[in-house]
Amino acid sequence: MPRNQQILLKSRPSGDAGLDNFELASVDTPALEDGQVLVRHHYLSLDPYMRGRMDEGKSYAAPQPLGAPMIGGTVGEVAESRNARFQPGDAVVGMGGWQLYSVVDPDVPGALRKVDTSHIPLSAYLGAVGMPGVTAWYGLVRICEPRPGETVAVSAASGAVGSAVGQPAKARGCRVVGIAGGAEKCAYVVEELGFDACIDYKPHADARSLSRAIKEAAPKGIDGYFENVGGMVLNAVLSRMNAFGRIALCGMIAGYDGQPVPITEPRHLLTNRLKLQGFIVSEHMEAWPEALGELGGLVASGRLKYRESVAEGLAAAPEAFLGLLKGRNFGKQLVKLV
Amino acid sequence: MPRNQQILLKSRPSGDAGLDNFELASVDTPALEDGQVLVRHHYLSLDPYMRGRMDEGKSYAAPQPLGAPMIGGTVGEVAESRNARFQPGDAVVGMGGWQLYSVVDPDVPGALRKVDTSHIPLSAYLGAVGMPGVTAWYGLVRICEPRPGETVAVSAASGAVGSAVGQPAKARGCRVVGIAGGAEKCAYVVEELGFDACIDYKPHADARSLSRAIKEAAPKGIDGYFENVGGMVLNAVLSRMNAFGRIALCGMIAGYDGQPVPITEPRHLLTNRLKLQGFIVSEHMEAWPEALGELGGLVASGRLKYRESVAEGLAAAPEAFLGLLKGRNFGKQLVKLV
Repeated sequence: MPRNQQILLKSRPSGDAGLDNFELASVDTPALEDGQVLVRHHYLSLDPYMRGRMDEGKSYAAPQPLGAPMIGGTVGEVAESRNARFQPGDAVVGMGGWQLYSVVDPDVPGALRKVDTSHIPLSAYLGAVGMPGVTAWYGLVRICEPRPGETVAVSAASGAVGSAVGQPAKARGCRVVGIAGGAEKCAYVVEELGFDACIDYKPHADARSLSRAIKEAAPKGIDGYFENVGGMVLNAVLSRMNAFGRIALCGMIAGYDGQPVPITEPRHLLTNRLKLQGFIVSEHMEAWPEALGELGGLVASGRLKYRESVAEGLAAAPEAFLGLLKGRNFGKQLVKLV
Repeated sequence: MPRNQQILLKSRPSGDAGLDNFELASVDTPALEDGQVLVRHHYLSLDPYMRGRMDEGKSYAAPQPLGAPMIGGTVGEVAESRNARFQPGDAVVGMGGWQLYSVVDPDVPGALRKVDTSHIPLSAYLGAVGMPGVTAWYGLVRICEPRPGETVAVSAASGAVGSAVGQPAKARGCRVVGIAGGAEKCAYVVEELGFDACIDYKPHADARSLSRAIKEAAPKGIDGYFENVGGMVLNAVLSRMNAFGRIALCGMIAGYDGQPVPITEPRHLLTNRLKLQGFIVSEHMEAWPEALGELGGLVASGRLKYRESVAEGLAAAPEAFLGLLKGRNFGKQLVKLV
């Protein structure tokens, strides 16, 4: 069996996460038991939710155990199989974690899924046709419920989730406004992804200033908002929501490290009769087939574009992850292992 | 025609509303035109939403015009009629405003409704079997969607809305926890309204302290929350919501005057996948018949109890209203005019 390398959670962060919270380890790959397969990972997915799991505190998932490999989505190929449904060479997606290899029992529901790479690149199954894409689809379709002619906004618009919110919203006949950090990302969102407008939040010192910029980009107000960020951006958008607006609350990067960022004027929620709903896509497995069907079709036909930030080699994962938390990535953050 | 008296909005408040924002006026009652009726008001309803209408700013309703009688719900009897459907002496509920008489065209939908006072007191049509009751019913049934065995909490629990949230929730097999201001109100909520517990928020200096008290009263956490108050109380309850909890946002008294009160830890909305929804019951007229049917049955059979604070005479309305905004009333605030 091949030698495996892993990134372990060494310690829990107090405040900002840092490189010293992680540790690279080298271990033997255990021999396969009946029914198991050995997967060689090609790409590891890095996602904001992982930061929450590093904490001990109450989050929506059990904390990541100390001393164990970091949890995470992976795509790869079957290297060895003692399971009749899987053959060496099969392209698969699973939750292999931050390591080169994983041993999987594919008979556990949701543990491993074969994917078709004839029209869709393998890495897309970690992005637009994977968890981030379904996250986008669920929040957009099931919570924001956009109708033609309405205005939909999304923060972190150039990212894996944001790009998969805006393009399907555009396809549904909405005006789509992105919010992103930096002129380069905003140009990409408008010129390549086809959003109607994109606001760079970085020059804005406060929510009031950002709110004015949103008013220009969304002169008829915002009906559906997909929130990936929280903090100042959420406060600014809240002031521009139309009556009966819907907000899908997917991420609050701004609050993961350090102090929580308050919602400064909750009165908007009442006066505009808004619905705000937090969700985690893994709890809505019933939506995955429909979502993956639409997303896969859009990607295969080139109507859902996305960008990837690729770090090279397992050892680069912690730094790439910390960069993701600071918004330094551009599109879906991956680690290439093969 | 009888001489009418009115309370006019004289000026808009800057900060706290005060007595000098109102003015008593004496005017002639106009002669009836064909189709109209003259209603003599027996009771005037005072409600927190009226504070929002006093402002010029964006609220969910058009602002109350300066120099016009304050808007408000009224019950009374038909004094004169030039409409075939209404006879002198008919008991009616409408939106007559802060005055002794109103001239109404009952053919305008929603303008005037005959009510049956054989088993339900006339004043109840301004409370448990009126707008506050339907408000409670809608938020509880349509947003909080309580299931037997769950825990439901409500703020301003002894009030017109709060009491009509808790008792139907109890009837649905829930554990019901009230939050109210003062030991006397809390004793009433538990002993007379039959809630399982009631927390006096007044001794608590901050949300953290109140949150600990809520944990004791709701050891299994809170699944449905009906919010009448906002501010510190909302922050404390948010920290005790269970996963997939539902929050009906009905009122934010704390924020009406002066500065908005932030939601300090919006992260709970995400980590616990909460749904928070603001609503105004007048926009859900389709729910009124079902709600009034249930509420009327409960009141007539004595299973929905309520208390009234009654101010005597039209001139007392402004001071009673300001007291309501400060939480000085106990139960539904009315002004008795006859």
